[in-house]
Amino acid sequence: MRIALLGFGSVGRALARMLVRTRAAFTVTAIGTKRHGAVVDARGIDLATVLARTDLPLRALPPIRDLPADVLVEVTTLDPAAGEPALTHVREALDAGMHVVTANKGPIARAYRELEALARERGVLLRFEATLADCLPVFTLRRAALPLAEIRAIRGIVSSTCNHVLSRCAEGARFDDALAEAQRLGIAEADPRNDLEGHDAAAKAAILANVLMDADIRPEDVTRRTIDAAAGEAAAAAARSGARVRPLIAIARDGAGVTASFGPERVEPLDPLHAVDGFSMGLVLDTDLAGRVVVQLHDPHVDQVAYAILTDLLEIGAAAPA
Amino acid sequence: MRIALLGFGSVGRALARMLVRTRAAFTVTAIGTKRHGAVVDARGIDLATVLARTDLPLRALPPIRDLPADVLVEVTTLDPAAGEPALTHVREALDAGMHVVTANKGPIARAYRELEALARERGVLLRFEATLADCLPVFTLRRAALPLAEIRAIRGIVSSTCNHVLSRCAEGARFDDALAEAQRLGIAEADPRNDLEGHDAAAKAAILANVLMDADIRPEDVTRRTIDAAAGEAAAAAARSGARVRPLIAIARDGAGVTASFGPERVEPLDPLHAVDGFSMGLVLDTDLAGRVVVQLHDPHVDQVAYAILTDLLEIGAAAPA
Repeated sequence: MRIALLGFGSVGRALARMLVRTRAAFTVTAIGTKRHGAVVDARGIDLATVLARTDLPLRALPPIRDLPADVLVEVTTLDPAAGEPALTHVREALDAGMHVVTANKGPIARAYRELEALARERGVLLRFEATLADCLPVFTLRRAALPLAEIRAIRGIVSSTCNHVLSRCAEGARFDDALAEAQRLGIAEADPRNDLEGHDAAAKAAILANVLMDADIRPEDVTRRTIDAAAGEAAAAAARSGARVRPLIAIARDGAGVTASFGPERVEPLDPLHAVDGFSMGLVLDTDLAGRVVVQLHDPHVDQVAYAILTDLLEIGAAAPA
Repeated sequence: MRIALLGFGSVGRALARMLVRTRAAFTVTAIGTKRHGAVVDARGIDLATVLARTDLPLRALPPIRDLPADVLVEVTTLDPAAGEPALTHVREALDAGMHVVTANKGPIARAYRELEALARERGVLLRFEATLADCLPVFTLRRAALPLAEIRAIRGIVSSTCNHVLSRCAEGARFDDALAEAQRLGIAEADPRNDLEGHDAAAKAAILANVLMDADIRPEDVTRRTIDAAAGEAAAAAARSGARVRPLIAIARDGAGVTASFGPERVEPLDPLHAVDGFSMGLVLDTDLAGRVVVQLHDPHVDQVAYAILTDLLEIGAAAPA
């Protein structure tokens, strides 16, 4: 299977390293970057060589429909508000009959129904495991382990940054220091409002609601309470009594519709989300046929984002051999 | 896809009810019981009618190879020591070119390599999700969400009975009372030694080691420490300091081989197995590519066993359409 890779930052490079390491049966035929050029080779690009370079030979990538590839891997820099340019890339690739794997929340949070319908119409697959929580098994889990089951409610921790900050506050750190530490480690952005105000978590809640619970909500429909210094103080107080304050999303059916929220919540020690500490993430899925199923990913790093993309590629490879 | 159902106790009946409820595209063509007769109808058995009966019309089921079925569902009464008669049933069905789904630990714990080789040779699938921990996603998870990853170590709680007893002791109950309660609820057997001495957990540890970590160990190779009144007292003491004592299995690579153990272990509040309370079960999988992945199933009942079988049937149906 031939892969066109759009975006060659930390995630794209981690994926390239993992493809080399696992000797997975994929050939990368195109790599495009925003500022460092592009490369196209229908016979296959030598990834080790490309990983060692800072700039690629072509000035820009040809149009997506002209790429010699069966699947587009979309890992360009995120614009969470509009979901662009990822949304345009995904749409173009599906329209051209290419499978798509994306790590970008925007297109899925804003246009899942449209994109899924387009993929079905063109007979290709759209996969996006990495959009939610690195390689935390969510959409693969749903397809493989929770078929036919109705998912009735979801609680979870999907923001590494917020969870890290509140975890450090629980250990006695000041909120500002914990946030500065997360920024120093490169997990919180220079402007941390996207995480702390819950915009990132709201996009993920919309994805979960729309994909797993057949809802049709937008990120703006998710009620948000900010993770702030007061939440940090609550986290410290909770820790003194053996509990934790965690940045939780909660999604539930409410009559005909689905409602979703984000905010700091007290979590007791026998709650399955209590031990989801630091950079870890996790979900509690309440279902009819499978009961209550919990998944967690502990202390992930960028390799786990790349692995989520790799599992999507492997599923496409198995379902739709070239 | 045509199903022959061997065993019509609580699990077999729960599966029949779930097939009716979900209108899954399967036809049950044969049902065999040990003491209440059998029924065979190549056009399909009306499950609602059979569920209302106490005895079935035929005295005994014909030989497995003569059944008009594509898949054998093996849910006969467990003989954990020898794995019989389940092992013979599974072997006969695979040999006759039928897919097999079993909820019986014995055949998988004792003869996984032989049975898997036979299934491959005959071009059929052997599935056993329900052997481990009801519908806790384990083998489906491995196939769908953890491909290519090496599983390096496993810790987990796979014994509902032991975990319930220690959980009740943590709440202040006496060990004997907690055990009697589990027996009254029908989850502990009249002779509870199979659970408390870890024979059941050892069989599950052998399955995990052999299937997920490419080991070749037998249940007898698993080091066992009994869950007893002293463990109950330790559970009560741990609870007073905010921790829990849980019945843990631990599997790890040790040089060239794989070692496995079972016994009561203290678990701190930030351990992902701390909140796996009561009848709940869970696993912590340490992997190379996916990092640390945790799955839990909270408060399962017999419907979750049936659901595990149903997910196996759906996977077979998707992979090998009749």
